[in-house]
Amino acid sequence: MRELLEAVAAGDLSPTRAEAELRGYVTDDAGRFDAARERRRGIPEAILAEGKSPEQIAALASAALEATGRALVTRLPDEHASTVERALEDDHPEVALEARAGTLVATGPEYERPSLSATIGIVTAGTVDGPVAAEAQVVCEGAGAAVERIDDVGVAALDRILDQVERLRELDVLIVAAGREGALPTVVAGLVDTPVIGVPVSSGYGYGGDGAAALSGMLQSCTVLSVVNVDAGFVAGAQAVLIARAIETARTGEP
Amino acid sequence: MRELLEAVAAGDLSPTRAEAELRGYVTDDAGRFDAARERRRGIPEAILAEGKSPEQIAALASAALEATGRALVTRLPDEHASTVERALEDDHPEVALEARAGTLVATGPEYERPSLSATIGIVTAGTVDGPVAAEAQVVCEGAGAAVERIDDVGVAALDRILDQVERLRELDVLIVAAGREGALPTVVAGLVDTPVIGVPVSSGYGYGGDGAAALSGMLQSCTVLSVVNVDAGFVAGAQAVLIARAIETARTGEP
Amino acid sequence: MRELLEAVAAGDLSPTRAEAELRGYVTDDAGRFDAARERRRGIPEAILAEGKSPEQIAALASAALEATGRALVTRLPDEHASTVERALEDDHPEVALEARAGTLVATGPEYERPSLSATIGIVTAGTVDGPVAAEAQVVCEGAGAAVERIDDVGVAALDRILDQVERLRELDVLIVAAGREGALPTVVAGLVDTPVIGVPVSSGYGYGGDGAAALSGMLQSCTVLSVVNVDAGFVAGAQAVLIARAIETARTGEP
Amino acid sequence: MRELLEAVAAGDLSPTRAEAELRGYVTDDAGRFDAARERRRGIPEAILAEGKSPEQIAALASAALEATGRALVTRLPDEHASTVERALEDDHPEVALEARAGTLVATGPEYERPSLSATIGIVTAGTVDGPVAAEAQVVCEGAGAAVERIDDVGVAALDRILDQVERLRELDVLIVAAGREGALPTVVAGLVDTPVIGVPVSSGYGYGGDGAAALSGMLQSCTVLSVVNVDAGFVAGAQAVLIARAIETARTGEP
Amino acid sequence: MRELLEAVAAGDLSPTRAEAELRGYVTDDAGRFDAARERRRGIPEAILAEGKSPEQIAALASAALEATGRALVTRLPDEHASTVERALEDDHPEVALEARAGTLVATGPEYERPSLSATIGIVTAGTVDGPVAAEAQVVCEGAGAAVERIDDVGVAALDRILDQVERLRELDVLIVAAGREGALPTVVAGLVDTPVIGVPVSSGYGYGGDGAAALSGMLQSCTVLSVVNVDAGFVAGAQAVLIARAIETARTGEP
Amino acid sequence: MRELLEAVAAGDLSPTRAEAELRGYVTDDAGRFDAARERRRGIPEAILAEGKSPEQIAALASAALEATGRALVTRLPDEHASTVERALEDDHPEVALEARAGTLVATGPEYERPSLSATIGIVTAGTVDGPVAAEAQVVCEGAGAAVERIDDVGVAALDRILDQVERLRELDVLIVAAGREGALPTVVAGLVDTPVIGVPVSSGYGYGGDGAAALSGMLQSCTVLSVVNVDAGFVAGAQAVLIARAIETARTGEP
Amino acid sequence: MRELLEAVAAGDLSPTRAEAELRGYVTDDAGRFDAARERRRGIPEAILAEGKSPEQIAALASAALEATGRALVTRLPDEHASTVERALEDDHPEVALEARAGTLVATGPEYERPSLSATIGIVTAGTVDGPVAAEAQVVCEGAGAAVERIDDVGVAALDRILDQVERLRELDVLIVAAGREGALPTVVAGLVDTPVIGVPVSSGYGYGGDGAAALSGMLQSCTVLSVVNVDAGFVAGAQAVLIARAIETARTGEP
Amino acid sequence: MRELLEAVAAGDLSPTRAEAELRGYVTDDAGRFDAARERRRGIPEAILAEGKSPEQIAALASAALEATGRALVTRLPDEHASTVERALEDDHPEVALEARAGTLVATGPEYERPSLSATIGIVTAGTVDGPVAAEAQVVCEGAGAAVERIDDVGVAALDRILDQVERLRELDVLIVAAGREGALPTVVAGLVDTPVIGVPVSSGYGYGGDGAAALSGMLQSCTVLSVVNVDAGFVAGAQAVLIARAIETARTGEP
Repeated sequence: MRELLEAVAAGDLSPTRAEAELRGYVTDDAGRFDAARERRRGIPEAILAEGKSPEQIAALASAALEATGRALVTRLPDEHASTVERALEDDHPEVALEARAGTLVATGPEYERPSLSATIGIVTAGTVDGPVAAEAQVVCEGAGAAVERIDDVGVAALDRILDQVERLRELDVLIVAAGREGALPTVVAGLVDTPVIGVPVSSGYGYGGDGAAALSGMLQSCTVLSVVNVDAGFVAGAQAVLIARAIETARTGEP
Repeated sequence: MRELLEAVAAGDLSPTRAEAELRGYVTDDAGRFDAARERRRGIPEAILAEGKSPEQIAALASAALEATGRALVTRLPDEHASTVERALEDDHPEVALEARAGTLVATGPEYERPSLSATIGIVTAGTVDGPVAAEAQVVCEGAGAAVERIDDVGVAALDRILDQVERLRELDVLIVAAGREGALPTVVAGLVDTPVIGVPVSSGYGYGGDGAAALSGMLQSCTVLSVVNVDAGFVAGAQAVLIARAIETARTGEP
Repeated sequence: MRELLEAVAAGDLSPTRAEAELRGYVTDDAGRFDAARERRRGIPEAILAEGKSPEQIAALASAALEATGRALVTRLPDEHASTVERALEDDHPEVALEARAGTLVATGPEYERPSLSATIGIVTAGTVDGPVAAEAQVVCEGAGAAVERIDDVGVAALDRILDQVERLRELDVLIVAAGREGALPTVVAGLVDTPVIGVPVSSGYGYGGDGAAALSGMLQSCTVLSVVNVDAGFVAGAQAVLIARAIETARTGEP
Repeated sequence: MRELLEAVAAGDLSPTRAEAELRGYVTDDAGRFDAARERRRGIPEAILAEGKSPEQIAALASAALEATGRALVTRLPDEHASTVERALEDDHPEVALEARAGTLVATGPEYERPSLSATIGIVTAGTVDGPVAAEAQVVCEGAGAAVERIDDVGVAALDRILDQVERLRELDVLIVAAGREGALPTVVAGLVDTPVIGVPVSSGYGYGGDGAAALSGMLQSCTVLSVVNVDAGFVAGAQAVLIARAIETARTGEP
Repeated sequence: MRELLEAVAAGDLSPTRAEAELRGYVTDDAGRFDAARERRRGIPEAILAEGKSPEQIAALASAALEATGRALVTRLPDEHASTVERALEDDHPEVALEARAGTLVATGPEYERPSLSATIGIVTAGTVDGPVAAEAQVVCEGAGAAVERIDDVGVAALDRILDQVERLRELDVLIVAAGREGALPTVVAGLVDTPVIGVPVSSGYGYGGDGAAALSGMLQSCTVLSVVNVDAGFVAGAQAVLIARAIETARTGEP
Repeated sequence: MRELLEAVAAGDLSPTRAEAELRGYVTDDAGRFDAARERRRGIPEAILAEGKSPEQIAALASAALEATGRALVTRLPDEHASTVERALEDDHPEVALEARAGTLVATGPEYERPSLSATIGIVTAGTVDGPVAAEAQVVCEGAGAAVERIDDVGVAALDRILDQVERLRELDVLIVAAGREGALPTVVAGLVDTPVIGVPVSSGYGYGGDGAAALSGMLQSCTVLSVVNVDAGFVAGAQAVLIARAIETARTGEP
Repeated sequence: MRELLEAVAAGDLSPTRAEAELRGYVTDDAGRFDAARERRRGIPEAILAEGKSPEQIAALASAALEATGRALVTRLPDEHASTVERALEDDHPEVALEARAGTLVATGPEYERPSLSATIGIVTAGTVDGPVAAEAQVVCEGAGAAVERIDDVGVAALDRILDQVERLRELDVLIVAAGREGALPTVVAGLVDTPVIGVPVSSGYGYGGDGAAALSGMLQSCTVLSVVNVDAGFVAGAQAVLIARAIETARTGEP
Repeated sequence: MRELLEAVAAGDLSPTRAEAELRGYVTDDAGRFDAARERRRGIPEAILAEGKSPEQIAALASAALEATGRALVTRLPDEHASTVERALEDDHPEVALEARAGTLVATGPEYERPSLSATIGIVTAGTVDGPVAAEAQVVCEGAGAAVERIDDVGVAALDRILDQVERLRELDVLIVAAGREGALPTVVAGLVDTPVIGVPVSSGYGYGGDGAAALSGMLQSCTVLSVVNVDAGFVAGAQAVLIARAIETARTGEP
């Protein structure tokens, strides 16, 4: 701990980073950001934008950038995106906004991207599953994993997914996103021996719409599948990373 | 009408049959039985046993036998089955009870089974879908259709259903029964150009259990599918018969 | 296959059409369009606009036009309609936009409309069922079927539907759309021997509103009825076409 | 009040009846019985048997008999019926148990049945609606109304109800009980100008089963209908009685 | 019938009115308007604006005005109100728009308001119940009934409603509107012997919000109550009118 | 800690009690019993019988008796009651089983009942609320509070509760249990300034049955009310005790 | 009462205040305001803005200010805030608008803030719980209680809440607000012996979103917890005040 | 393939095993058993007993034993357990029935248990979670994994789980089962960096009972968690095995 305080004294470490190092999280008027957990797990801590004002979001993102060199904002509403983006760009060179997925990633100048050898596949049934898959992808890539996307392979035309069986089997973990009746994760999990995480997508109208049929179908699946909530791309990505890191550790012998 | 009354007078026609002929249905203390509709549509009128006492069921079945030469009882609870069976066997030689499907078919001595050239396929995902499929089958066979059963071809092991594509394509109408996530009708409808009727089955536990996930998944299906209620084997069978009869009429030029 | 490639080489066939011919679907950044299935089933493949950007919709529609000479867009939100319309009109002479039904049909110069002799009736209970019925109608007409509309015959004034019994009985398949308590398909199915497909419409407020009462009522119907999801005009139309085509094939002896 | 106490003193009035007269209700270990309200409204106060022990039921029924000369028990479970019946028969000559409706009516020797000139029609769609209709009937008859039953006129065969239009129009109030899709009250209310009270019945299985489709359909009805809860025969009967009494009062000029 | 046609020929009767007289309803591109039923029941036929365009609404209202001398539009969205109002004012002198209730009443020059001697009370728990009560009131007054409003008497402060008991008891029928926990109709029905119709109002947030708690509470009420759907002011009003008319008929001896 | 171990060594303290003293809870094959929490809060730790075998229940109850001198079992199914009772009576003199509430209280020979001066009122709407109220009462009395019961004061006859206003106002905390529409807690909370805890009871059938209407009505209440889950008499009692103890501490100046 | 009227006559008391004094509430076109209850309970009567027009809100707030010297408006929609604020500022010097919580407090010049010695803790899991906590805080402070806020202590990082155990134990009552899975109140209630009131917050998406998971989790909690509806900060605050006042009374010996 | 057939010919291989080898599954009247998948994934194929007769269960189990040397039956109802057990014991020496978990494992004489070095932790909140945890454990152990059980560590007494943090961190994968409010998986996932699979358990009554609150709470969790359906111990175990096997493969370099 003395080292840390000396680094602060020497100006090599900002007080924010030191606080993060010491207490595990940065406290701010807008909330707290858990820097220690990010360092420990390798998964970018997400700043969930829903229910926060653009100012709160930007403040938390700045705290994150200060503490870890990176900020990941998810569920950023279209109307707040540019406000947050501008607020961050003033201080930080690189900000990547993916509008359809509603995610924003900002990195500071000295940020070093981590790297994982384990591979994560992200599979979608159709075009509307794209934003949810993109949210998962941002998390996986943020943790350094290699991501392979296999898109538009919904079960209404089975040959599309059957064409991909070989590729699917080579990956270490699979995230499968599907809306409507959500049958794709079941079909994929029947074709591989890899852990599959199902992500229901809030498409569809009428009874079972907004992802309810997909969620219940994945929970009822007669194959082996674990599931996250409707549209929860972030959680699916983070769980895939935890599995990938466990594999990585086993492979390399170090965490 | 005079003919009818003369036949009654001559003892060639029972009053019950004459009433059915004249008014379209037989009235009884236990309810009414629509004999005219059965004759017109070719679908056996079902006596839904649920919520009726064994005596009411047997009375309605007797009226049906009297009026049309046949009776079909569905949803017959195990505890009432033998009571109803015995009550009918006293007067009628042939009674077939299918315990697991909860159906009972009784035919009188002069009953002539109808015949349809159109073929109906009944497909199930697993063992638990059997009773619902059996209820559909009784209806289809009661209307004279040839039924082909393709069982245990759930989507968790895709090759099972892929092995059957040729057979599926040769049939005129398909009924596909599945519980749990209920994805089989979607997959089948993607493989054929035939009308497919999905029947959700009340298997599964937890969220979406008792057929809810299957029903909502079939209603959300991204293929072309029409659906009946959970466990509604009778309705699926009857709708398949109506389609088969329309095909038959077109083929033979007569209704 | 050589023929196809020669046709491409000779410029008689666009690469997109050739791809469609060979692989069964056209792949594009915006998703995939299943041209082979459209040719096989005769049902226009729908491009579901919900959850897609106007650019994605127009790109998929162009791919469809290129591959099959026609594009059908459904659930097109009002705010995207004119953007998509204009994008298509640049290249394609005929674009028909039905604003209330949210459908758009575009056909290329050489498109030949198919023709089916089987007739499909589309029945509505009231004015609000119009858009859903219109979506079904576009599909049926797109497949070449003759459509007969019987409107505003809700069960609150029974003589309206009783006046139409003769017309109803002459049609090959019936689609019946109704919101609120959704009793019309039950009443119609009790009056005819034709297959009836019920379409719940998302009208009504309070308990059972947004089509829930209509859907559950149709699934509970004590007549023979198969059902599609709330507002699923497209699926109802497509299922009616599959039945009509089966009848057609039986009648003419050719698929 | 003095009169009352003198009557008690003179043994002409039991203390229980006096208490009922004075305080509006009889209190007992098993609960309270509102004798004053029964006298005022003319509707037998129901002792809801559900959730009470046979001893509690019999005690309340005795209190009712003591106070008003009559007791009406509803929702009496089969297994408690004979216990309650026997307990009452010891002291009271007339006990009528209607097993399927789960109601029990006991009257004391001096009980005078009230009489109302207004007529109440009770209409059912099918056999399974019988018990609920019977519960309503007991209440109406208990209040002295003339009840007309019109049974088995479900909408799947419209001519059944159309045959009854004249009878329906002659009645003062209508109670219409229906399960499954529950369309009958809507159809009846469209045929008459009388107030119609819809009673959903808990028949049917799958989605919308147990009366849910019927209840939501009646609440969504596009005719004029007021509704009571699923299987609430008692409430429907009592509301019909209140209307019938208002009519009676208007007709005779006295309450 | 000849009379009618002669009146048309003589220009004394518009063809629309004649059609209404002859067929029971006016048909128009925008739907049908049931003029005969309005004349028969005395309840203004409502034109439900939801799901219709302003042009469809105005067309139906014009047809109504033509046929019966009056038009009642309900659930008129704010954004369509002035369009419809202006369209009608061109031809018809008197148009009354009640913005908060979303109703619009237009009457032609020769319209004669009907009159009923029976009185209807409309009771509300709080300010938010106002629009629903107003919708009911428009219907009752349109049928000629005298309406008495008793407002802001929610059960959280019981003395408010207890102060009104005498007034409540003098009325012939009561409509009681309440949102949130919806206990007011239960309390009112316990205080009077008049028929009470409960109307749940879609206020409240969280679990049981939007009227669900109020609806279920009224259906579960331990008093005698019949109920209409959430916010269904029109239906409550119309049912009250049917009861009031039955009382009126009994009182005057003529319908 | 040494003291404790010496007491064990001296045989003055059983090892179970010592473990409870040291670790805060007793561990057993059947689960854990939190003796330290019981001592700290004064609320008897409940052994929830649901989902446990009679042997597990008796083992946990014995551990509780050993550690604190008392055991409270709740939700004890009828079929397990006598088994558990007998198992306990072997070792412990006093076992009180309240069959309808499903609770069982056993106390050891040296058990000293605690005492609280604060008073808790328990109010019920009707007979069926009795068991839930009894469960709450057992907890309150187990913590030493004086309990006052006010029963059968449902809102259908308001004078019953109005008669009790004075008594209600003298109590420190109120628990109000009601099923069906659950309006009683709202009415009570409007009459007093005391904290009121609402307990929905799982009575009622149809829509909103099993306590759903009562729960949602209490959560929607327009008075000040906090709520526990359906039938959660134990939690209501325990929360009332926590409030009573806070009042007690304030009054006496000691915890 | 004469005093009061003399004060009015002398101009020392406005008629509105006199009415409040005499009748318990102020009646106005916009509704009623219960001034007597506010005085009795010490809890500011809230004017719930939802479903009211800005004019109705301002009128009720003015009546409140007139009668009690203070007005508290809750759930004030953003778009009405400034209209109401301006309307009040014309007459009243102090208006505090807390935009994110949607509350507005206005006090007249002579208003004297009450004071309570009991302390209320308000705990939140994360940033999005802020507005609901703020609504509770306004009520507690309006009743004179000292409020301590403990924010951002969600259970995903347990050390945050464990760090606060000492502070939590020193407070008299706790309000704990949490969205998503809503586990914080359970964890807090396990750490203290104080009464805890859980407030579910409408955050989260997908299944269990909008506060449903939080509400059901708190109702299912295996600790002692009473609960208010989703986002019901006002009710939680008011219930905490009632408990705090009971404690205060016990401590000081006067109400 | 010739080898296989020769082995059959030589009697070294039963025809059933040969079929399993060749076609991937054994077909039987009672259904199909997927022997090839079991061999490939290492997870015992479960025979789900629900909805099957004891004879069907025993037949499938025999087929499994024949094909793979082992059978795992889950959800075996108490009343079928001994029938199935006896049927199997006739032919197979070792049958282990775990009554509370409803599982039955039978192994043939030559069966060799597989072995995995990765460790799986199974954590429960309370006694009622035991059977679900046991089902998961059977699967994990059946696949050869070392299982560590950490029981009775529910969040109502946080020190229980905090005491286990070190043990939790040493395991490779965690399964956490909890009913009621289901907060334990969230708390555990906040304490470790291992993949955590949440299993909701169907305990609890009232709103959110039967596992609904637990499921929705886990899906809403603000930590990283993937989830299986209510009571789905088998799926949780199997998913944990897939992850453990991926780790194993990485560690040993061979599948």
